[in-house]
Amino acid sequence: MKIIRNSTPAADGFRMPAEFEGHEGCIMIFPERSDSWQYGGYAARKAFVQIAEAIAKSEKVTVCAGGRQYDQARSMLPDQIRVVEMSSNDAWARDYAPTFVKNDAGVIRGVDWGFNAWGGLYDGLYFPWDKDNQMARKLCDLMDRDIYDKRDFILEGGSIHVDGEGTCIVTESCLLGKGRNPELSREQIQENLQKYLNVSKVIWLPCGIYNDETDGHVDNICAFTAPGEVVLAWTEDREDVQYAMSGACLNCLEEAVDARGRKLRIHKLPLPKPVTVTEEECEGLDCCGDGPVRTPGERLAASYVNFYIANGSIVVPGFGDPADEEAKAVLGELFPDREIIQIYTRDILIGGGNIHCITQQIPK
Amino acid sequence: MKIIRNSTPAADGFRMPAEFEGHEGCIMIFPERSDSWQYGGYAARKAFVQIAEAIAKSEKVTVCAGGRQYDQARSMLPDQIRVVEMSSNDAWARDYAPTFVKNDAGVIRGVDWGFNAWGGLYDGLYFPWDKDNQMARKLCDLMDRDIYDKRDFILEGGSIHVDGEGTCIVTESCLLGKGRNPELSREQIQENLQKYLNVSKVIWLPCGIYNDETDGHVDNICAFTAPGEVVLAWTEDREDVQYAMSGACLNCLEEAVDARGRKLRIHKLPLPKPVTVTEEECEGLDCCGDGPVRTPGERLAASYVNFYIANGSIVVPGFGDPADEEAKAVLGELFPDREIIQIYTRDILIGGGNIHCITQQIPK
Repeated sequence: MKIIRNSTPAADGFRMPAEFEGHEGCIMIFPERSDSWQYGGYAARKAFVQIAEAIAKSEKVTVCAGGRQYDQARSMLPDQIRVVEMSSNDAWARDYAPTFVKNDAGVIRGVDWGFNAWGGLYDGLYFPWDKDNQMARKLCDLMDRDIYDKRDFILEGGSIHVDGEGTCIVTESCLLGKGRNPELSREQIQENLQKYLNVSKVIWLPCGIYNDETDGHVDNICAFTAPGEVVLAWTEDREDVQYAMSGACLNCLEEAVDARGRKLRIHKLPLPKPVTVTEEECEGLDCCGDGPVRTPGERLAASYVNFYIANGSIVVPGFGDPADEEAKAVLGELFPDREIIQIYTRDILIGGGNIHCITQQIPK
Repeated sequence: MKIIRNSTPAADGFRMPAEFEGHEGCIMIFPERSDSWQYGGYAARKAFVQIAEAIAKSEKVTVCAGGRQYDQARSMLPDQIRVVEMSSNDAWARDYAPTFVKNDAGVIRGVDWGFNAWGGLYDGLYFPWDKDNQMARKLCDLMDRDIYDKRDFILEGGSIHVDGEGTCIVTESCLLGKGRNPELSREQIQENLQKYLNVSKVIWLPCGIYNDETDGHVDNICAFTAPGEVVLAWTEDREDVQYAMSGACLNCLEEAVDARGRKLRIHKLPLPKPVTVTEEECEGLDCCGDGPVRTPGERLAASYVNFYIANGSIVVPGFGDPADEEAKAVLGELFPDREIIQIYTRDILIGGGNIHCITQQIPK
């Protein structure tokens, strides 16, 4: 592995492929920390295993497990899923596994963004985050891929979505927040995205899903399903605070033109009814530094947009909500060649994310 | 990675290649434990790095490092050497990294022997050894290679040498000792070697190097340099207890016929003058369970036979002894196409082994 410091993917002819392009595989991390995963992760890890198995039907899955959980991970996962020992602070592969870029010759490289637990000392979610921040390099070393050093720029993989044809979607609430790169202007941030993802157009949505503790990652509200096509998390309930938020994003998407000059086709993906955390679930969460992580009744950022596009399937959250079926149907129409696999993920949602947050694709 | 329990390499057409056949790479482990490596390993790890760099000139080197030493390993090793996080009890890759076997189609698989720290509760060298015993599987999982489960048979990689053409050399002192497989007869042990290495002939030397705490691993006294050719550690000093030991091995080798019916060409490789550990070196070693690991004046099992055959070089120990040059010259004649790289390894020897003990080749 070479660490590339004096060039950028754009300068070298590398671009970030869209998630719907072919994958070599997928990276996940086995859940362990007891302030993220209720009752020591015993429930969450079952859902993680189901997700890994679903993805492994059509691509190679590598699960990273810390030393203490290695045996458990290896015993719960089937043989064809690779388990490698790697320490981390938590299990959000999307946010700190490398963002991969690819050139026309098919060479794959990683991008190593800085990671500060979604806001660092300003409003980060845990401390320390040193092991997470090392994972991109460790993974590229493991895979023998060179990596671009961009640790001076704080970015999580869940805060960007690309179409593979020059367009990136982000949210202002996340990328312009004070916890990440307060010294950089919007233009400077956009320039970093252009250089390191090799995109010419950045679409800035105002916000994400209500109460999403990532400051509104785009991957929970809006995702590309094809070049020129997106899904947007949507509610028809005008009483819901999310109504105005999704509406503002819709306006923004309707006005947008992508890198190739196309207007976007926008597909509304229904949201489940508000999901709140129970007292019993809160009791199962250990404290994190300053105190409780969740309070009973707290609304969780449930959204079907947090799906993963595998080579042969769409792995999408289920919440036991009537909208589960509708979400499946919408995605089935948008991805007619892929199996729609829905997995009940309440136990992951309590941890603060969902299927897309705990996966990172490696392009083919 | 599939774990193969109902077949053997021989039954499946896999054989262990000789070390002098082509390699895909080499596995090493970064030294860490303070009862093996004096003064916290600060000296030993420098020698490990030199060895890794020497091997990396002609093949890919992967160094496994525990979580606490990962940063140190990564910072001391050059970019082209891969560092992966993996916990272990110590740093003897030869003995518990997988033994690799290969079929005619070029498929590589691992063999997972049982490991009990060179003698288990009978006369093992440390406790516990659980992490070491896991490494073969972890490494095969990492490399996506299937592995034969033979954990019910205790064997270290350093206790076998093969010519790749059906012959294996071992020592009775090691394989027939009470600490490994006391319930198995010599014939049953030989049968295991035949099935799992795919050899038809096992040459049993009586012993190894004097005071070798592995119970006399063959890789410290005798090694194949080509089919039908071996080097044997040798001293002309009749006062040395090693004289009779090497002599007994010589008799055995002179009488032996290999799997192809050949008599062996035996090349004597001189031993350095006896090497003993100093008081200062002993002070630098933490205690291990029952007490001190070394006592001042204790003789160490120094031998030039503990070299590693890399694709483009022979990496051989040096002891600051006049015989260093002679050993280089002998190996230079036996391996005319490879560079002879000698590395001063006293700091590894104090840990109980040498270059061959801390390396494991992966066949091409």
